[in-house]
Amino acid sequence: MVWYIIPKATGGGAFKFADLFKEKLGILFDKEDEMCSLVGGVNFLLKTVPREAFTYLDGQKKFVEIDHNDLYPYLLVNIGSGVSMIKVDGDGKYERISGTSLGGGTFLGLGKLLTKCKSFDELLELSHHGNNRVIDMLVGDIYGGTDYSKIGLSSTAIASSFGKAISDGKELEDYQPEDVARSLLRMISNNIGQIAYLNALRFGLKRIFFGGFFIRGLEYTMDTISVAVHFWSRGEAKAMFLRHEGFLGALGAFTSYNDQSLNDLKPHHHTVQRAILNCSGHNLRHIPVTSNLNESETIECSINLV
Amino acid sequence: MVWYIIPKATGGGAFKFADLFKEKLGILFDKEDEMCSLVGGVNFLLKTVPREAFTYLDGQKKFVEIDHNDLYPYLLVNIGSGVSMIKVDGDGKYERISGTSLGGGTFLGLGKLLTKCKSFDELLELSHHGNNRVIDMLVGDIYGGTDYSKIGLSSTAIASSFGKAISDGKELEDYQPEDVARSLLRMISNNIGQIAYLNALRFGLKRIFFGGFFIRGLEYTMDTISVAVHFWSRGEAKAMFLRHEGFLGALGAFTSYNDQSLNDLKPHHHTVQRAILNCSGHNLRHIPVTSNLNESETIECSINLV
Repeated sequence: MVWYIIPKATGGGAFKFADLFKEKLGILFDKEDEMCSLVGGVNFLLKTVPREAFTYLDGQKKFVEIDHNDLYPYLLVNIGSGVSMIKVDGDGKYERISGTSLGGGTFLGLGKLLTKCKSFDELLELSHHGNNRVIDMLVGDIYGGTDYSKIGLSSTAIASSFGKAISDGKELEDYQPEDVARSLLRMISNNIGQIAYLNALRFGLKRIFFGGFFIRGLEYTMDTISVAVHFWSRGEAKAMFLRHEGFLGALGAFTSYNDQSLNDLKPHHHTVQRAILNCSGHNLRHIPVTSNLNESETIECSINLV
Repeated sequence: MVWYIIPKATGGGAFKFADLFKEKLGILFDKEDEMCSLVGGVNFLLKTVPREAFTYLDGQKKFVEIDHNDLYPYLLVNIGSGVSMIKVDGDGKYERISGTSLGGGTFLGLGKLLTKCKSFDELLELSHHGNNRVIDMLVGDIYGGTDYSKIGLSSTAIASSFGKAISDGKELEDYQPEDVARSLLRMISNNIGQIAYLNALRFGLKRIFFGGFFIRGLEYTMDTISVAVHFWSRGEAKAMFLRHEGFLGALGAFTSYNDQSLNDLKPHHHTVQRAILNCSGHNLRHIPVTSNLNESETIECSINLV
């Protein structure tokens, strides 16, 4: 018996590595569009999983009940290496309205160069112990310790990210890596929060959901983004997060199966096994999806339900 | 004869260094609000100086004639260490509507740490010889060299600033400083252009003027900002620059003198000389401003008229 694995695959890698997988492993990708999968995953979660969305401010996670009939339109901000901002109007109805090149790749890329950290987790951990005021120029640093109250800027607001490095005569090695990491995290998170809010405002979108590997349920990251949205919207908007945000694309690719595509699986000389690539995590529960296939033909997806 | 120098002073330094100047040099600042001076300077220039505003795209400077009766409202983006975005509605009528902490201080601060450059000019010069594609992750790097045409992203668009540093196994010293400087300049300029455009859109402002020490008539900087505004507005908006943008605050402080304040100069035992601090540059022409003062009492301001 010959096995052909035809996994659903999404993201840039589905295109970039398609030839490599075919040539070296004999694996053909059933490619799903990245953004379509992402949106499909979020819609599926928000409509199916109770207590999926939550806000995070001052260390408090607060679940938000969303009326399924009042879900659309919303803004989805996916923070991967770069950032995509997608206006979602319904199932399969979406538009990438904006984005920014300052994303998780910038955080980790610059972080690696500045701190010699090797991984995202290491850099994030470092940032938790740092103090951004060592290297960021605050409003108070400019105005002799006072607020610039006339325009509503407190003395502790960041006037210039990394601005103190201009004039304090220090070299890179004179700074603590944790302070550098903290400034970097605040710079990127603040910026994403601001651009997201401005885009939500532009299209009159009352809900902003943040997802992608930059978030991953990390409290300080969520807190920084929430503070940014709160600051720029003057309290009018709230950042929202998803419990299963690490699996959006995979879930969307999974939900792209429909009855017809399942019926189309007519193996002849071989067994076809479909699976979702990159659909993994801790605390997994395997969910067999049954259909009118033979027993040897299974569709499996592992999703994190914890 | 005792001389008291009571210069007009504006900017954060007018507050930060006030006590130092008073104590060490016996100089009292006549403080003018920074933002008010800035706006006053721009309004003065746009209404007084012919061919003051220009666009810059593809190496072409193009002067823009502005009808004085149709000047307001406009967006003023002042790029110093941080960035202020100010909606100007008339003489003395303005509001700081937004800003970003990613400004000239971030460019120079991060640039110094990453390249060991000592000055802004050195870093800018370096950036002119660099190639950002070495370290930025482009859309084509993600999608195997192809566009992501479905959402209108070309293969050469920057997907993630500094994103290649994640995975190419290089240390900071393995990169050419000029490539790092170039990526940094594009990251900061793009971001400012994007946030400025979004704010102009939000308030229905058809003109965006960029000024501050980050610009200083530097062609590549203006070009990058112009490209960013063009990209994010899909060609609908144009970035505009000012010929005398290095003197906005000083000019505004200068124009804050009015007949009454000149009349109030009633020296008794000493001569009062007023001047504008930080009003300097190359190719200066001194413009004595006469009034009903005695001959020994002069008001001077040096402005760049070249």
